[in-house]
Amino acid sequence: MSDMDRRRFAECAAAFAAVLASGAPARAAQDAAAAPPPHDMSAMPAHWMGEEKIAFLIYPGFTALDMIGPHYMLANLMGATIEIVAKTKEPVRSDAGLVVTPTATFETASSPLDVVCIPGGSLGTLAAMRDDATLDFLRAAGRKARHVTSVCTGSLLLGSAGLLDGYRATSHWVTKPLLPIFGAVPADGRVVRDRNRITAEGVTAGLDFALALVAQLRDQTYAEGVQLLAQYAPEPPFAAGAPETAPPAVTKMIDGMFVGLRRDMREAGAAAFARSRGG
Amino acid sequence: MSDMDRRRFAECAAAFAAVLASGAPARAAQDAAAAPPPHDMSAMPAHWMGEEKIAFLIYPGFTALDMIGPHYMLANLMGATIEIVAKTKEPVRSDAGLVVTPTATFETASSPLDVVCIPGGSLGTLAAMRDDATLDFLRAAGRKARHVTSVCTGSLLLGSAGLLDGYRATSHWVTKPLLPIFGAVPADGRVVRDRNRITAEGVTAGLDFALALVAQLRDQTYAEGVQLLAQYAPEPPFAAGAPETAPPAVTKMIDGMFVGLRRDMREAGAAAFARSRGG
Repeated sequence: MSDMDRRRFAECAAAFAAVLASGAPARAAQDAAAAPPPHDMSAMPAHWMGEEKIAFLIYPGFTALDMIGPHYMLANLMGATIEIVAKTKEPVRSDAGLVVTPTATFETASSPLDVVCIPGGSLGTLAAMRDDATLDFLRAAGRKARHVTSVCTGSLLLGSAGLLDGYRATSHWVTKPLLPIFGAVPADGRVVRDRNRITAEGVTAGLDFALALVAQLRDQTYAEGVQLLAQYAPEPPFAAGAPETAPPAVTKMIDGMFVGLRRDMREAGAAAFARSRGG
Repeated sequence: MSDMDRRRFAECAAAFAAVLASGAPARAAQDAAAAPPPHDMSAMPAHWMGEEKIAFLIYPGFTALDMIGPHYMLANLMGATIEIVAKTKEPVRSDAGLVVTPTATFETASSPLDVVCIPGGSLGTLAAMRDDATLDFLRAAGRKARHVTSVCTGSLLLGSAGLLDGYRATSHWVTKPLLPIFGAVPADGRVVRDRNRITAEGVTAGLDFALALVAQLRDQTYAEGVQLLAQYAPEPPFAAGAPETAPPAVTKMIDGMFVGLRRDMREAGAAAFARSRGG
């Protein structure tokens, strides 16, 4: 723990203790009866401190926001550790040119994981669907993880690794029609959960997914705290965030941009899924 | 332009040409009358291609989502270039441990900029408020930039650099009360614009800010396309994204976490602002 972590942690502890002493949240009030003075961690509900091992799997050309949205939310889980896993420790370049340094490799990543999350992308995701080392790591991690999750076209990688066979799932709206090639059942919803698989729709759906996961791993009050910290009271300037609500010409334009990519992803996904069943 | 950029670019051009040929968007239809076949760039409205120079200024302990939200939106501006500027080219660690490699330094950053954007943070932002080299760069870049922008507590850095004196502005709700020490006038709104200063509220407000900026730099149809690509139709699981809508105990808890930080930021901000007026 760095000095900064320690200080932040101490501030959190004091704040949590203070709110508990005020007796506000129902579950907390009970523990607070015997609450020691603010700086004592024992004043916090025990279940607010976790020890989850969380990993984001990144690859060249991943979409940074798919990863950073959930990363923000999950990094606020006190006691949890987050790894950024990639094939090597070399910095990884996102589709939009952001360069991120991994903290672990396929060989050094923690196992088993409590949460594995894979972001999407476009051409980079297509390349990853063709990369057996990436799919092998994802398959092995996914079989053992408590929560197997994706954002955006990341679900195509889960599918390619054979992890969505027989599961309801979603993806970016552009690639959602591809899910059946992996034995998955496309389902409605910004975030789709089926047993321990959680898949989120395109890019920004990662925020909604991760906040719900925070609530599950802690409780609603905790998640509300994280949401307030993120000041997540969105006000999109237009109503164009879904293919059904955007002007038809805009939906047609964006859909048209990905005709080639979707065709290539269908082919690569079918081949990968076949390999995953053989393996 | 990398091969990936080139392919993506070609796909965009084809898609834009196709939608123009369909005559859908009003402004586009006019240009489309004489539209050549799909792969010809000249079929796209000329103003959809820009050449903006955009820079995000990062520093140790910055909040990655403050930067990556806008980065996603602005990276979809065809023809624009984005720099990640820091004091040195050494990788920079975010408050939550994400390590990002800058692409330019204070010495090598483009000037003048069309957009300069500074993300917030907590202890890292406090340290930056005390760092004259960072404030000097920001002041110089801000005085020449077309759009001077911030997300979250990034506005405290704009203020420390003397760039909000006499401007209406906002910040993360926790730090908004500090704005007057910089001569700024706290204003309502998820995104506050006063002349060429644009400040966004906490963390996730960067998405709304940047999408509005895309609309300004291109047009509404273009921004709607970016919004649809991001599938930005948010569904926060709780109503806790603003201090007024969150359960009072949650607001009190989060506010309580930052009493010490806010006090330190007030002191550091006042000192920096005094130096910026002397300079």
